[in-house]
Amino acid sequence: MKSRITELFGIELPIIAGGMVWCSGWRLAAAVSEAGGLGLIGAGSMTPDVLREHIVKCKTATQKPFGVNVPLMKPDAPQLMEVIAQEQVPVVFTSAGSPKKWTAWLHERGIKVAHVVASSTFARKCEDAGVDAVVAEGFEAGGHNGREETTTLCLIPAVRKATTLPLIAAGGIATGDAIMAMRVLGAEGVQMGTRFALTVESSASEAFKQRCLNLAEGDTKLLLRKLSPTRLVRGGFFDAIEQAENNGATEQQLLDIIGTGASRRGIFEGDLDTGELEIGQVASLLQGRSQQTVAEVFMELLAEYAAAKQVVAKS
Amino acid sequence: MKSRITELFGIELPIIAGGMVWCSGWRLAAAVSEAGGLGLIGAGSMTPDVLREHIVKCKTATQKPFGVNVPLMKPDAPQLMEVIAQEQVPVVFTSAGSPKKWTAWLHERGIKVAHVVASSTFARKCEDAGVDAVVAEGFEAGGHNGREETTTLCLIPAVRKATTLPLIAAGGIATGDAIMAMRVLGAEGVQMGTRFALTVESSASEAFKQRCLNLAEGDTKLLLRKLSPTRLVRGGFFDAIEQAENNGATEQQLLDIIGTGASRRGIFEGDLDTGELEIGQVASLLQGRSQQTVAEVFMELLAEYAAAKQVVAKS
Repeated sequence: MKSRITELFGIELPIIAGGMVWCSGWRLAAAVSEAGGLGLIGAGSMTPDVLREHIVKCKTATQKPFGVNVPLMKPDAPQLMEVIAQEQVPVVFTSAGSPKKWTAWLHERGIKVAHVVASSTFARKCEDAGVDAVVAEGFEAGGHNGREETTTLCLIPAVRKATTLPLIAAGGIATGDAIMAMRVLGAEGVQMGTRFALTVESSASEAFKQRCLNLAEGDTKLLLRKLSPTRLVRGGFFDAIEQAENNGATEQQLLDIIGTGASRRGIFEGDLDTGELEIGQVASLLQGRSQQTVAEVFMELLAEYAAAKQVVAKS
Repeated sequence: MKSRITELFGIELPIIAGGMVWCSGWRLAAAVSEAGGLGLIGAGSMTPDVLREHIVKCKTATQKPFGVNVPLMKPDAPQLMEVIAQEQVPVVFTSAGSPKKWTAWLHERGIKVAHVVASSTFARKCEDAGVDAVVAEGFEAGGHNGREETTTLCLIPAVRKATTLPLIAAGGIATGDAIMAMRVLGAEGVQMGTRFALTVESSASEAFKQRCLNLAEGDTKLLLRKLSPTRLVRGGFFDAIEQAENNGATEQQLLDIIGTGASRRGIFEGDLDTGELEIGQVASLLQGRSQQTVAEVFMELLAEYAAAKQVVAKS
């Protein structure tokens, strides 16, 4: 599974755990890096002080490379970046903003940069901005999502044509078969969110994990197109938004329904009724399974990937 | 590329051209079957008399197996089935209805049956109904679509787990790489719509083909969720529906906007403003390309498939 992605980050396997709000603390990041992938701490739900605490604990828990994901629309992104530089984190994944904004600053400090996009247009902007790798994330992904609604199957070949950058596929990937399928489509690594959000090491609440391990097809949907398209899990919060949208709700009416602290309430505190629940569409493929450790997930992914290779050899 | 699908239909390559309204006449079906795949005549836009004419011409144009796609919600489906049986068409693909309704009747007449689904639940119903193969079609597909919005990447592994039936993947597939990716995910063949709708042999209008060969990412969207979810191409018709939906339009208001004859006007007559334009999301991957013949498409698919196999062998 060696590729430009394993070389770039100095890791054994091109499998990255997405930096997910309320899921991706130091425990999950360190476990993924220890297993040979690249763990990301999700700064999207952290203050600068909390982020520093997670980085310090992650460095204690693993000697291997790990990174931090920073959503650039966060008002305290500059303070988060300062903490990352002070603590000498080797890798930053940026998202939800322009790749031009921080890439040079991070490079000056010896930090590798990947940027998350949902279209070829933004992938080209990444190349212009000098990022080291691009993450192309399809419509299947949980949480915030691209306006084009391009699925991973359509997006990866398009981004592969649009840029020569090392390419990480994301959205809808939870098995070794899917990792191989992405390789076939031109990706050199994968970022997986859902599968790792539901592991023992994820800091999400038990109630959230149990709910997400019991979803049927169609139990996540992309809503909030008038604000920022977001894939949500069915529940009280989902129903309120879906109904408002069906009745033609305005942006302000949607913002009023969302209120504040909804994703903390849903994912971290396990309030499945009024809380915002975010997970990828591929969760339904895990329906009825139990929580696994990160090490167990990696063993399964590698076995499936090897089996997929045999399938291709025979075809 | 031999599989249970090539055996079942007696064809050389497990590549099926979807039966698309206003695109899939005898010319396209015969060309695909002549190239070694399975061509389907799309009865969705045909009266029984017109269908008979297309079947007769297709039999003259090729000695190889071909089929007819029948959307079961069509009021004249019984008359279409009578024509198919009288003309001894060897294969029928049914969609938009229960697989129980016609499978036994068709089998009694020696006709092979595949049914199109968008979920594992319906795939299991296909197995119960005794169909010979199941087509699992993801969110990327053009035209009518499943309510669950499950993408091909998430759907194929789910249907693979749900049934032991021979499995044909559809939605978002336009290249040999994607055919290989589907094989990796457990499919034994593919159904491609978009790629064939835009060939020389397709009976769609030149204006429609040119428009669809120049789409950017995001230029198709799934709309009409309150009626029957349908992937449409941006244009006057699309804009009218999108705006009405944003304002909370009722089912009746949407039906009034749609009116009658919209897809004939858009696809067959080339009225890009008031006509309904249906194509798959993967069209943007063909952006800027020119029309090809079916034979050229097959040559490209086979070359890409062989190259993808080499990529996997090295990984």
